[in-house]
Amino acid sequence: MSPLNCLTFLTDFGLDDGFVAACHGVAARIAPAARVIDITHLVPPGDVRRGAAVLAQTVPSMPPAVHVVVIDPGVGTTRRAVAIRAGQAILVGPDNGVLSWAADALGGAEAAVELSNEALWNHPVSLTFHGRDIFMPTGAHLAAGTPFEQAGDPIEVTGLVRLAPPTARILAGEAEGEVVTVDRFGNLQLSISAQIAAELGIEYGRRLVIRSNRQNLTAPYVETFGSTSPGELLAFTDSAGFISLAVSGGSAAEFLSLPPGARVRIGPAPSR
Amino acid sequence: MSPLNCLTFLTDFGLDDGFVAACHGVAARIAPAARVIDITHLVPPGDVRRGAAVLAQTVPSMPPAVHVVVIDPGVGTTRRAVAIRAGQAILVGPDNGVLSWAADALGGAEAAVELSNEALWNHPVSLTFHGRDIFMPTGAHLAAGTPFEQAGDPIEVTGLVRLAPPTARILAGEAEGEVVTVDRFGNLQLSISAQIAAELGIEYGRRLVIRSNRQNLTAPYVETFGSTSPGELLAFTDSAGFISLAVSGGSAAEFLSLPPGARVRIGPAPSR
Amino acid sequence: MSPLNCLTFLTDFGLDDGFVAACHGVAARIAPAARVIDITHLVPPGDVRRGAAVLAQTVPSMPPAVHVVVIDPGVGTTRRAVAIRAGQAILVGPDNGVLSWAADALGGAEAAVELSNEALWNHPVSLTFHGRDIFMPTGAHLAAGTPFEQAGDPIEVTGLVRLAPPTARILAGEAEGEVVTVDRFGNLQLSISAQIAAELGIEYGRRLVIRSNRQNLTAPYVETFGSTSPGELLAFTDSAGFISLAVSGGSAAEFLSLPPGARVRIGPAPSR
Repeated sequence: MSPLNCLTFLTDFGLDDGFVAACHGVAARIAPAARVIDITHLVPPGDVRRGAAVLAQTVPSMPPAVHVVVIDPGVGTTRRAVAIRAGQAILVGPDNGVLSWAADALGGAEAAVELSNEALWNHPVSLTFHGRDIFMPTGAHLAAGTPFEQAGDPIEVTGLVRLAPPTARILAGEAEGEVVTVDRFGNLQLSISAQIAAELGIEYGRRLVIRSNRQNLTAPYVETFGSTSPGELLAFTDSAGFISLAVSGGSAAEFLSLPPGARVRIGPAPSR
Repeated sequence: MSPLNCLTFLTDFGLDDGFVAACHGVAARIAPAARVIDITHLVPPGDVRRGAAVLAQTVPSMPPAVHVVVIDPGVGTTRRAVAIRAGQAILVGPDNGVLSWAADALGGAEAAVELSNEALWNHPVSLTFHGRDIFMPTGAHLAAGTPFEQAGDPIEVTGLVRLAPPTARILAGEAEGEVVTVDRFGNLQLSISAQIAAELGIEYGRRLVIRSNRQNLTAPYVETFGSTSPGELLAFTDSAGFISLAVSGGSAAEFLSLPPGARVRIGPAPSR
Repeated sequence: MSPLNCLTFLTDFGLDDGFVAACHGVAARIAPAARVIDITHLVPPGDVRRGAAVLAQTVPSMPPAVHVVVIDPGVGTTRRAVAIRAGQAILVGPDNGVLSWAADALGGAEAAVELSNEALWNHPVSLTFHGRDIFMPTGAHLAAGTPFEQAGDPIEVTGLVRLAPPTARILAGEAEGEVVTVDRFGNLQLSISAQIAAELGIEYGRRLVIRSNRQNLTAPYVETFGSTSPGELLAFTDSAGFISLAVSGGSAAEFLSLPPGARVRIGPAPSR
């Protein structure tokens, strides 16, 4: 099998310690020709849904690669370690659902193995650092050309753990979804796609209604921030194709006080 | 044209999300042989002057490269996207001045194009993520050997947006400048070069006067921190050639409470 | 000499400025074929012991490499700049002890030179940024194949500055050690190895006593976190082979309020 020669790496390890670097070292020893791209290591500790969302939105920009993910609050339990083939990519990580949305974004899981080929691991295997000793070494061998099937025993893709996707549904002329992520700019990404918004009759240049808890606001739905006033709440279609809320020159997260997971409804504002 | 095979990348995207990684993925697909060096992604959101200062002080250490900069509070307005040739480097980013000091540091802008060659872009182009869809793909093609002229339509370098440089002037035997940057150690870099200080008669081993608002202090001007006492305010010439203020073992930023942009005057202290 | 073609980089520069990137640029110019792995740049400013601990625990995962370390509160004093050969690695940094534990982890210092070959430096040499102008360029030349002996004048390895290692001793059936590091998850790594714990009769599945200041607690000593209850204090053997304290789903650092350097005693809990 020709090597992919590209690894990406997503964890909740933080950047203060040497944990990420130890895994880079392992990759460099096993796959010296592979490029390694860090996705982020600042996922809140153990936040599997956040990791899944970041991964799913980033993999479409990547070349064919092995994506190694270590957000693993269940290390040391019976949770499985798996590799999943999807599109031109391989996903490697714990079978806790963190890989599931990315597999969908890549076209769906085609095959899966439980990581059981200890010849690909780093020994002795630490009981608490599977990133260094199981996930990254296996991922690096796969990036260097080891056939996927050799990573372990085949398992059914239908048996993989799946995270419930962020929900979005249409109710009485409005779309109800949830806050998926909050980025550095304080923008709130909703689970409502631009396509659903279009089906409701929400159009660029018109206003929409935003309901959450007791808040009941309206905001313009704009193509870009350029046409808005500083401090103004607005909605736009983000780079992943979802409706997002922003405050021009400010933070929608602060303005609305809505954390990831919060329910939000949007609909076309009544014309006056 | 022989490829530069080196890209640098400077943004205000932060490190919590997958935005930086998505751009790395785009670069890896287009220019797989190019080395990518991250300058920083922690420029405060939209702080064009801070980005310009970091870029200008870092590019002299770089090999010939394409420098991709995305500090772009005007994304979605009519601000232009440009590439600028300066020395052995190419600067790619929004035409909001963020590139202007680096162009000067590289010897001055020699040619410029407005990015209009859509064949070099990532499609569909997001309206809010030009880093992934316009700046980085164009930069990566340039790093891989696409001729500069093919990136877009030529424009006059005299028409590029320029940031007013941090000012420094000599007034009545003192130099008046401003705080340009505050680094992690709490050191304050002034816009006053060591050369201006020398012209005023400020010499290593002598004391200088530091005036700001109502503060009126003196500090030794030293070659290195080695000769100072813990907690002592001091002035030195930093690695970019500018007069900087530090507190030995502490933070001059906290000691003086001076943010970037604050006016500061220095002069030789009267001999006693 | 065949090139090592791998550099690692550990500093206290932080990630907000262009300092790390300037050193990467220097490395790319001198050793364009070398892979550069960042260990971390978030060591607290001037914290030589913290840097030494992170380095020593990370180098065993690395391929043969030149490790460049710039935690250098004494820049500008008479402290020496050195390169040390240990195992298949070369350590480059200030002679303030920051390299000493890593040298031990690599099998011990075999040879050392004081960096005095100015032909390998970046000129003009800044008085305050030896990372860019002395340590990284020398390290990059060594990574690119310059013989170790050409980096400077030979010095005795017995004369290198050594940090006192974190102490651990057995007293009256208990092991007394100190908190070495606190990681992002709030886990406290002690200076007490799993081997010492075994000698005291501490076994997986049994409880141990933890004493510090006036605290006197017991906790289970477990192989993995999987078998514990949320919020429960526990002890485990970490990925570096040391006894560490954790709170399942929480932070042992917050629970115990013990900073790096704090003294801790552990011993087998009396059977009931």
